[in-house]
Amino acid sequence: MSEPILNDISHRRFNLLRGSWVLVSPHRNKRPWQGLQETPTKITLPEYDPECYLCPGNIRAQGQQNPKFDRTFVFVNDFSAVKEDQEEYHPERKEASLATRLLRAESVTGKCYVITFSPSHHLTLADMAPAEILPIIETWTNLYTAHLSPKSPLAQIASATTVAPLSQEDIAKPNAQYRYMQIFENKGTTMGCSNPHPHGQIWTTTSLPEEPAIELEQLKKYKREQGGAHLLVDYAETESKEKERTVFENRSFWAGVPYWAVWPFEVMIVSRQHKRALVDFDEKEREELAETIAEVTRRYDNLFETQFPYSMGLHQAPLEGTDEEIESSHFHIHFYPPLLRSATVRKFQVGYEMLAEPQRDITPEQAAERLRACGGELYRRNL
Amino acid sequence: MSEPILNDISHRRFNLLRGSWVLVSPHRNKRPWQGLQETPTKITLPEYDPECYLCPGNIRAQGQQNPKFDRTFVFVNDFSAVKEDQEEYHPERKEASLATRLLRAESVTGKCYVITFSPSHHLTLADMAPAEILPIIETWTNLYTAHLSPKSPLAQIASATTVAPLSQEDIAKPNAQYRYMQIFENKGTTMGCSNPHPHGQIWTTTSLPEEPAIELEQLKKYKREQGGAHLLVDYAETESKEKERTVFENRSFWAGVPYWAVWPFEVMIVSRQHKRALVDFDEKEREELAETIAEVTRRYDNLFETQFPYSMGLHQAPLEGTDEEIESSHFHIHFYPPLLRSATVRKFQVGYEMLAEPQRDITPEQAAERLRACGGELYRRNL
Ligand SMILES: O=P(O)(O)O[C@H]1O[C@H](CO)[C@@H](O)[C@H](O)[C@H]1O
Ligand SMILES: O=P(O)(O)O[C@H]1O[C@H](CO)[C@@H](O)[C@H](O)[C@H]1O
Repeated sequence: MSEPILNDISHRRFNLLRGSWVLVSPHRNKRPWQGLQETPTKITLPEYDPECYLCPGNIRAQGQQNPKFDRTFVFVNDFSAVKEDQEEYHPERKEASLATRLLRAESVTGKCYVITFSPSHHLTLADMAPAEILPIIETWTNLYTAHLSPKSPLAQIASATTVAPLSQEDIAKPNAQYRYMQIFENKGTTMGCSNPHPHGQIWTTTSLPEEPAIELEQLKKYKREQGGAHLLVDYAETESKEKERTVFENRSFWAGVPYWAVWPFEVMIVSRQHKRALVDFDEKEREELAETIAEVTRRYDNLFETQFPYSMGLHQAPLEGTDEEIESSHFHIHFYPPLLRSATVRKFQVGYEMLAEPQRDITPEQAAERLRACGGELYRRNL
Repeated sequence: MSEPILNDISHRRFNLLRGSWVLVSPHRNKRPWQGLQETPTKITLPEYDPECYLCPGNIRAQGQQNPKFDRTFVFVNDFSAVKEDQEEYHPERKEASLATRLLRAESVTGKCYVITFSPSHHLTLADMAPAEILPIIETWTNLYTAHLSPKSPLAQIASATTVAPLSQEDIAKPNAQYRYMQIFENKGTTMGCSNPHPHGQIWTTTSLPEEPAIELEQLKKYKREQGGAHLLVDYAETESKEKERTVFENRSFWAGVPYWAVWPFEVMIVSRQHKRALVDFDEKEREELAETIAEVTRRYDNLFETQFPYSMGLHQAPLEGTDEEIESSHFHIHFYPPLLRSATVRKFQVGYEMLAEPQRDITPEQAAERLRACGGELYRRNL
């Protein structure tokens, strides 16, 4: 480790991507744990579950029938958090009162999708080969393209990008121009996921949500202050040289535990070249992204020999925005996994973390070292 | 509700205290839940548990024996996240390299305490009468006072404040001047608490942590822009008039579900007069604070007839800071409880919430209405 003292003393690290701090207390990992034990997901699931609303051919909550899809399948979320059509909101408080100043709301419309990652109920990304993950990346790219503002500098690229056309694209046509598309996956019951069938979600809104907005401010600032350089290009380059936080890398992507990671085994996948969004990748790059996702998720499962829970999500250029916003955006993926010591002992970001500041126990360097060491075959392949 | 349409449409609300947004999707509360079920804490605990490291007279992890205390008891956390003494940190990276710019850390020292709320193993704040909660507030006040910078405008007030002297004050003398004291409680296994004996924690650091720093920026800004007015005084006044988010109030405090609440039954207790920190309260005000805490925690337990889990914490003036920081600070308490629909179904702030923006289902007005309705005796008193 380049600064071994950080293995021993309490310190804070600065998250350049958010402009925020995290408290690191390495010695704290030694404390005994007598609290809540997680219940690992049982790993013997059937390939097809007649009760699952995501399996091919089954009927969903509101009566629609899934097609007999063979790769991915996208549909509008039956319980969407935002909708395309709703009553218009005109704030009633108009007078210059305290209430008008203090109680501020704005309407949000948008569209929420569910995307299955495979027809097989019992698979996860960790079980899938890069070639099986590729169609997911293609579907994400198609959905992103279908929602891009025609005024975005990305729109031209998008139309030139050759992604295998998916029969489903029609469902993806939005009624209106939205601002941002958040692609994400919750995996495992610990992360609020209620169906083990491999799937992710896509929420598209008229608003630019908090997290991408915070990151975008930092990305714009860095680009302005560093004569056009990109924070995450510089960061990936630095990490690739330093090595100690690297988990896996190929020609196009760096994957590792960020210097400022909050979750014990948090990982970020960063495009090494400046890429604003999914549409900037060519086929080879999409394959390398698939390989990187496979490497990260497989290592996660190998680490504690369990179905490793996490929330993951893509950050990229807004669907609609200023040229500065779009040019400053840089494609990356965050993985936020809660487990700390074993399949049953997690890190709680509670009390101090909610009220004061995120806090971690093992250092990012220790976490990366362990993840590097557990590559190779998926542990359960040979069981 | 003053704007009934907000009960039906998806919208965002602006959190003036943090300068951030939260997404509200009221219709989403109707979706069925098939995910993780919480295991409620069993409510039949003994009054004394020989295995508990917090019960009077017992031996703790590192061999010390607890005294036979009869109200509160404070000790230095056996597994402190920050310590008073550690090796000094001098960053090794000095050259003007990318790594120097991108990988930034700083040392943090400080002191962590545990405070028991009662000698009785089986009690919680919800079980305690205001007169039993009062000693906790007095101990918090004493600890805060013992750590105050002698240069703070609060130091004079503090020495004039008459809080019953606690025999334990000697342990509270810090070696150095720290910047901030975070007082908090994690309650319930869901919130990472590993011992049901009623207790809280106090982490005191050389750094001003993220959350109080973010709030302090907003408080300073409001005071500057509104000719010296205090955001939370104006806010409590507005809410006290609007009533629909109020859960309980007395002469000194407003307690309710903030307009911008993230957690389903989140509550904030706000001092109605401008008070910078605990030391600004007189005895009557401390009694009213005890009453307000009792009212909130009892209603929580009554809501789903369970031991309601939460993290709660006090925000107040930094121990050391500029005059503007100290004068802009305003005493308040946040309660962040995860339960959504019943004792076993929680809200997960995962996926979209971690990657994009906090999201809630029931509106703050609906939550406040339910909490207002469940005052009165603690449900388990008559079981
Ligand atoms: O200190 P405790 O109670 O052992 O631990 C609990 O509270 C801490 C402060 O909020 C958290 O960092 C831990 O994750 C949590 O389990
Ligand atoms: O949409 P789902 O899978 O039912 O729900 C899950 O993911 C959502 C988006 O992160 C969260 O808002 C929910 O709290 C969580 O349970």
